[in-house]
Amino acid sequence: MTAETYDVIVIGAGPTGENVADRAVRGGLSAVIVESELVGGECSYWACMPSKALLRPAGVVAEAAAVRGVTGARLEAAEALKRRDSFTHGWKDDGQVSWLESAKIDLVRGHGRLAGERTVVAGDMTLTARHAVCVATGTGAIVPPALAGVQAWTSREATSAREVPARLAVVGGGVVGCEMAAAWSALGSRVTLVSRGGLLDRLPAFAGEAVASGLRDAGVDVRLGVNVSDATRAAGVVTLTLDDGTSVSCDEVLSAVGRYPKTGDLGLSTVGLKDGSWLPVDDTLRVTDVPGGWLYAAGDANHLALLTHMGKYQARICGDAIAARASGREPEVRDLASATRVPQVIFTIPEVAAVGVTAAQAAAAGLRARVVEYKIGDVAGASLFADGYQGRAQMVVDEDRSVIVGMTLAGPGVGEMIHAATIAVAGEVPLRSLWHAVPAYPTMSELWLRLLETYGL
Amino acid sequence: MTAETYDVIVIGAGPTGENVADRAVRGGLSAVIVESELVGGECSYWACMPSKALLRPAGVVAEAAAVRGVTGARLEAAEALKRRDSFTHGWKDDGQVSWLESAKIDLVRGHGRLAGERTVVAGDMTLTARHAVCVATGTGAIVPPALAGVQAWTSREATSAREVPARLAVVGGGVVGCEMAAAWSALGSRVTLVSRGGLLDRLPAFAGEAVASGLRDAGVDVRLGVNVSDATRAAGVVTLTLDDGTSVSCDEVLSAVGRYPKTGDLGLSTVGLKDGSWLPVDDTLRVTDVPGGWLYAAGDANHLALLTHMGKYQARICGDAIAARASGREPEVRDLASATRVPQVIFTIPEVAAVGVTAAQAAAAGLRARVVEYKIGDVAGASLFADGYQGRAQMVVDEDRSVIVGMTLAGPGVGEMIHAATIAVAGEVPLRSLWHAVPAYPTMSELWLRLLETYGL
Repeated sequence: MTAETYDVIVIGAGPTGENVADRAVRGGLSAVIVESELVGGECSYWACMPSKALLRPAGVVAEAAAVRGVTGARLEAAEALKRRDSFTHGWKDDGQVSWLESAKIDLVRGHGRLAGERTVVAGDMTLTARHAVCVATGTGAIVPPALAGVQAWTSREATSAREVPARLAVVGGGVVGCEMAAAWSALGSRVTLVSRGGLLDRLPAFAGEAVASGLRDAGVDVRLGVNVSDATRAAGVVTLTLDDGTSVSCDEVLSAVGRYPKTGDLGLSTVGLKDGSWLPVDDTLRVTDVPGGWLYAAGDANHLALLTHMGKYQARICGDAIAARASGREPEVRDLASATRVPQVIFTIPEVAAVGVTAAQAAAAGLRARVVEYKIGDVAGASLFADGYQGRAQMVVDEDRSVIVGMTLAGPGVGEMIHAATIAVAGEVPLRSLWHAVPAYPTMSELWLRLLETYGL
Repeated sequence: MTAETYDVIVIGAGPTGENVADRAVRGGLSAVIVESELVGGECSYWACMPSKALLRPAGVVAEAAAVRGVTGARLEAAEALKRRDSFTHGWKDDGQVSWLESAKIDLVRGHGRLAGERTVVAGDMTLTARHAVCVATGTGAIVPPALAGVQAWTSREATSAREVPARLAVVGGGVVGCEMAAAWSALGSRVTLVSRGGLLDRLPAFAGEAVASGLRDAGVDVRLGVNVSDATRAAGVVTLTLDDGTSVSCDEVLSAVGRYPKTGDLGLSTVGLKDGSWLPVDDTLRVTDVPGGWLYAAGDANHLALLTHMGKYQARICGDAIAARASGREPEVRDLASATRVPQVIFTIPEVAAVGVTAAQAAAAGLRARVVEYKIGDVAGASLFADGYQGRAQMVVDEDRSVIVGMTLAGPGVGEMIHAATIAVAGEVPLRSLWHAVPAYPTMSELWLRLLETYGL
């Protein structure tokens, strides 16, 4: 056994873990990351980066097809897959390892497990933390029992597959299911999407409806309100039996029904926590109910918001908090965003983007909320962006404070528009000030003027 | 002579005039607009709409060309011109006239001239205003003496031409010159752009450099620091003599050197003002130094910010102010944006977008400003948007108030990104709050995180 002592030990070298360690080091501490797979994590190799590398070609082809005067744009699947490979660096983490070195963060390759207070064992290494251990192990894809025996794809295979299956079934109507149905359909698969509910059910209904419409326009067979009751694979062909009495034959099936925390084999029970559980945290990302306050959890594993950017945001706060406490101060910056100010962009065709709370969530939270909707296609900039632009916006206003608490956008090109709303929500900018934030004409952002006019300004 | 009396008379039926009248009517007043040309104005027929209708096809072709996995996108000039024609409704204003009717705004077709206090004459009509007259006549294109004899295009011909000239010379390096060089180059003209300075000289240098580089990549001959000393047209061919001793032969030449106020034949002298002058206004758009305070000027004619969206913004404030004063109240909402919070998007390839003050303007205003720059291509979302993304961002922070007072972006797709900055600037959102406005990964908006990190948060 080798023993090492660091100020901070981070388990998991995804973007969240990297940022926790980086902020701690910038705060004057020593830090080590323990990682059993690739440095860079799910986001870099099997999620955000490869999925968006695949979706962008499909997206720009769709954009080109919507503008009179442009012709001939088409997607070449083999080249799009190569593009994806370049963004994942061929699933090699040399670049990320170099970054760790430049950031003065040590790396231990191996499976890290807690072994009592401030102690992590990885292989033959025993690591002791002077100040803190942070769990940043993220999540894995749930494969439901019905799909257990058919070698189902998860998000990993869906983002890293090297061949385009002739027929792909996607089970699940969340972000992964919708994005991967869009991507593989564009790449040439005949895609069937099966969801037990609708699509993107956490968002206002128009968002999922826009995505369903886009998928159907692309030739995807979208089946909603249906469960998979059984699945078999024979001679390479998967047959899904659905509970509406129909079936689906396909060459691959993607399980996209949800995520579980990668905390099952983490030694949580050695510190009084339950193996496999999500880790509830306070607004400094410190795990609640752990004596001594030395255990933190940032990113997916705390279940606050399963998104790379929120993990990184939490990581900055967490790393700073650890450094502050190590020097005897309480942290100044707290997590103000993970509960009710979470932005998300879904890179389907059309795109969906949202931040903050929906009308339903506002009502559930007891806010006196007013909802304003507008057809984005009625904005001059949108009509210029795409002929016959179809899209919708929903703004949720907290009437008592006269600030926007939520925005949902669905339509081509809305992905870069949501940050304006995120600033309005996080900055609690009063509507009377937003009136002086003039959108440039003729951009799609003139939507803001229309929403405020519709509100009554 | 016919005589009519209205609460408000607006001269000029562009977007600014329409909005002044609309807000006044919504405020309970009667209103008439006097217009000698098309209702809808410059923006609808000879500026924003046709120019962007032409530029969007070129833009999306460029975007498609920058994504590996996409091939074949090309622009068809004839179709792009038809697209432009559909956005200008074939230069017919029936739709706009119908809108005036629906908004309960009367229309007098003819050239409106002031004839003393609260009086406007148009043809055989004498109109009297109970409360206010608003000048919203906008601007026209300056044609310098050197180009006076060669039937030079102005912005009007450049946005409405029905044929693609084989060779086009563009004189002027401002927004019109840059945008029209980009558009006609994409449509097939061999374009030479001549500027006595650089390009987009009011913005930080990197903006104009990005546009120059984009134009050169598209095959435009960009000649900077050069004046046109003479021009002749013979047998259809225009020859420009430049003061560096070279010359340019072309089939059409666009004069894009600036704008003059359309106030020369407006009867200003009948109310004690100077014919042909810009009209200085206060923060309710009321012309200063006119006894009785009945004369307003909104949009280009007041010289505050020559942009459609700023004209419309001023119009809303102006119309509301007129209505407020008509009922004996002082207006609550003042123009807070036209001086230092003006956004602008330039739809070149790549795009440029800016809001607020530049570093130079901040210094001139005596602000303790700090400038932060970032290469947009280093943002993951930008690298996904376009392979080899080139772009730059500059953020200007007022250190005394810890708020952003300016942002300039240059790069593909930045046009819809600027409104986030506009909200931050107009809302005076403190940097410490912007830190909690988390950009969604992997969008280009993650630029915000990088700028704040570079600042030191």
